[in-house]
Amino acid sequence: MLAPRTLNGLLDLAEFPTESILDSARAMAKFSLFDWLVVARAGAGEPVSRIVRDLVAEEGGKPVASVVGLAGKLPARAAALANGAISHALDYDDTHFAHVGHPSAAVLPAALALGEARDASAAQVLDALLIGAEASIRIGIVLGRPHYERGFHQTATAGAFGATVASARMLGLTREETRQALSLVATRASGLKSQFGSMGKPFNAGIAASNGVEAAALAARGFVSCDDGVGGPQGFIDAHVDEVFEDTAWSVPRGVFLFEDIKHKLHACCHGVHAAIEALAEAQRAHRFDAESVASVTIRTNPRWLKVCDLKRPRTGLEAKFSYNMVTAMTLHGVDTASDAVYTDALCQNPELIAVRSTVTVVGDEAISDTGAVVRIETRAGETVDVGHDLSVRLPAETLEKGLRAKAAALVGAGSAEKLWETVASLPTRSARDLGDILRGLR
Amino acid sequence: MLAPRTLNGLLDLAEFPTESILDSARAMAKFSLFDWLVVARAGAGEPVSRIVRDLVAEEGGKPVASVVGLAGKLPARAAALANGAISHALDYDDTHFAHVGHPSAAVLPAALALGEARDASAAQVLDALLIGAEASIRIGIVLGRPHYERGFHQTATAGAFGATVASARMLGLTREETRQALSLVATRASGLKSQFGSMGKPFNAGIAASNGVEAAALAARGFVSCDDGVGGPQGFIDAHVDEVFEDTAWSVPRGVFLFEDIKHKLHACCHGVHAAIEALAEAQRAHRFDAESVASVTIRTNPRWLKVCDLKRPRTGLEAKFSYNMVTAMTLHGVDTASDAVYTDALCQNPELIAVRSTVTVVGDEAISDTGAVVRIETRAGETVDVGHDLSVRLPAETLEKGLRAKAAALVGAGSAEKLWETVASLPTRSARDLGDILRGLR
Repeated sequence: MLAPRTLNGLLDLAEFPTESILDSARAMAKFSLFDWLVVARAGAGEPVSRIVRDLVAEEGGKPVASVVGLAGKLPARAAALANGAISHALDYDDTHFAHVGHPSAAVLPAALALGEARDASAAQVLDALLIGAEASIRIGIVLGRPHYERGFHQTATAGAFGATVASARMLGLTREETRQALSLVATRASGLKSQFGSMGKPFNAGIAASNGVEAAALAARGFVSCDDGVGGPQGFIDAHVDEVFEDTAWSVPRGVFLFEDIKHKLHACCHGVHAAIEALAEAQRAHRFDAESVASVTIRTNPRWLKVCDLKRPRTGLEAKFSYNMVTAMTLHGVDTASDAVYTDALCQNPELIAVRSTVTVVGDEAISDTGAVVRIETRAGETVDVGHDLSVRLPAETLEKGLRAKAAALVGAGSAEKLWETVASLPTRSARDLGDILRGLR
Repeated sequence: MLAPRTLNGLLDLAEFPTESILDSARAMAKFSLFDWLVVARAGAGEPVSRIVRDLVAEEGGKPVASVVGLAGKLPARAAALANGAISHALDYDDTHFAHVGHPSAAVLPAALALGEARDASAAQVLDALLIGAEASIRIGIVLGRPHYERGFHQTATAGAFGATVASARMLGLTREETRQALSLVATRASGLKSQFGSMGKPFNAGIAASNGVEAAALAARGFVSCDDGVGGPQGFIDAHVDEVFEDTAWSVPRGVFLFEDIKHKLHACCHGVHAAIEALAEAQRAHRFDAESVASVTIRTNPRWLKVCDLKRPRTGLEAKFSYNMVTAMTLHGVDTASDAVYTDALCQNPELIAVRSTVTVVGDEAISDTGAVVRIETRAGETVDVGHDLSVRLPAETLEKGLRAKAAALVGAGSAEKLWETVASLPTRSARDLGDILRGLR
């Protein structure tokens, strides 16, 4: 199925003028950069992070780009591979629902590696993240659910195109060179959903980032690919999907960044339970009841989540992340759901949590969107509280900032969180190499 | 569409005992190794070779593996990427019709790079080529024509699995580690046919080789992928093809290598005209007529080739490679069709060649297989000669050796050809590092 407008759409994005970028879009990119640094630091010690970092560190090479938690520098392709895997290791990085995936983990490592290699400013890296991620989102929409359902992982596949756009910007490619890079990455982009639940999932983000760096670097050297490897005959889209949504992706008014709808995970558990956590917390803030006073909780959610995160009696920390019952008990008891460390096997045996857990009923409701939840709490005193929350509603910047900084403190400690926040807050005075220094220090 | 037997089939191949390999299979692998060295040397100066080699040379890194025409050594992943692209640059490397692609260009660079890094023997590299290529051929058959017709390039996609099997052998992986490597490369394997006619086609062989090295190296470090990324649900096969031919691939008796049906190009032009060239040469040898005495030539060929290589009046050297009329004139005039250098624009203007070219008629005939051709020559003296040739018939070893050595002499000069032949003839006394020394000297 052809998508002939997509290549030009991506090329137009790659050339999007810096001065026309809306402040609101750039502010959101800044939140994503901060959040990426936090989750990369928190995931730096994961087994997949260690394995991929060790591989590229042993290979070595010209020291131009930094890797999270590695003292020395490496070539840009290698750094992008490792940083992509590391930043997606916890699956706690940003998500874009229309893209069907995680844009920043695939795009930012490419922008950072080439930014550092070319001694760009941190502001240029930020813009490359924004524009590259926008490219990922747009082609992710073109590929759509049918691509995902066929078995492909947009984070990896669409992500490779976004990483290429970001890389092309960092290398200052001409429009023609960028066209070659995009047509070339089409033959390199890959990534399957069957890797979910294994180290292959975070690795998918790394391969997207590395593929983007490679394609742009080869195009800069004069590599000639086919005319339109993206949307042309037997191009990437034609081969990888039977139905395309090109109009949906490209009918957005010029200058509007769908990136602004990106969602940052504020809890270290399945995204499917986040709306319920927010609604419960809001209810508790507004009505000031404690966990012991709760008689019952009913959670209404989109039925698709019942197959994903409705474990009634979780026994392990990992299972707790996929349990409405458990996160409800945790939230009402004030356990910090933002901290990855609290989801333990021991937690699942806590009698006080089990007491609340047992009062929770989960109901599927087609009328609720898959980003929403409605909770009803009945207290022992006979009070009934109904609160709804929808993740698709954009948070006020102050609320998001507060949430992200609390998450950061929970994940990496208050001191480190504050330092990373200051870095991002002072971005206009920073260089890409300053960011590289920070990456190497994230240990 | 699931193919659950394929992973085990590949694992059994990876473990195939060295002592059970048939001499005839190993002899064919030796021809492929020789031919690979020749076409890699001949393609070393092509633009795609220069661009990819320059990229990895600039990245540098731990010097463990050699690249064709590069003085220094590089990491194995990088060497495999470059050598794959270089050896497929002229599209003159070996072909397996059932695999639908070029096995050695994707597999041998992986085996060579890791063999050199691990200081293996040249014989071990040869066996890894044979077994890895056999793996490529089998999964190529599983994917079949529907995969190719959808837009995928088996050289790259199936080739990545073969390169992984070869790499697993060179690294001495356990069966479980090899399973992890194959499930992992499933998320990395890629390659599109839309790159044909551009530098992307040879690059596809390089990415397959590099992907194989990477997957095996990560598995050796403990990388855990999914249970069956190859033939399981939403595995590589499920996502990339709608119809599979698993029985065809795996009902071959144990110990039989389909690799023995590999074909070596003996002429520097489209494979579609090769059978006609062989038939014409055979007719001329048997009946000893010269080009001037030919009144007319009729070539019967499978109709699929009429859309591929039936240019009536080629104007450029490249077009001549896709012209029955022109290669007929060249063959009858004794022009060395094995030499890439003879296909020039000037050649297309040669009046004597044009005189013969104009007498040629090409006829599509469904009764002729796509590896066959039947030619009829009528001489001015009224004689009629009919000769058929089918490339699928295995050549006697002596005939193949003679053809490959003549091709080598035409491509790289008699002296270099002889040296490479002696290297391969003395393989049992050589190490992988000796082969690496030869690669670096191919300039």
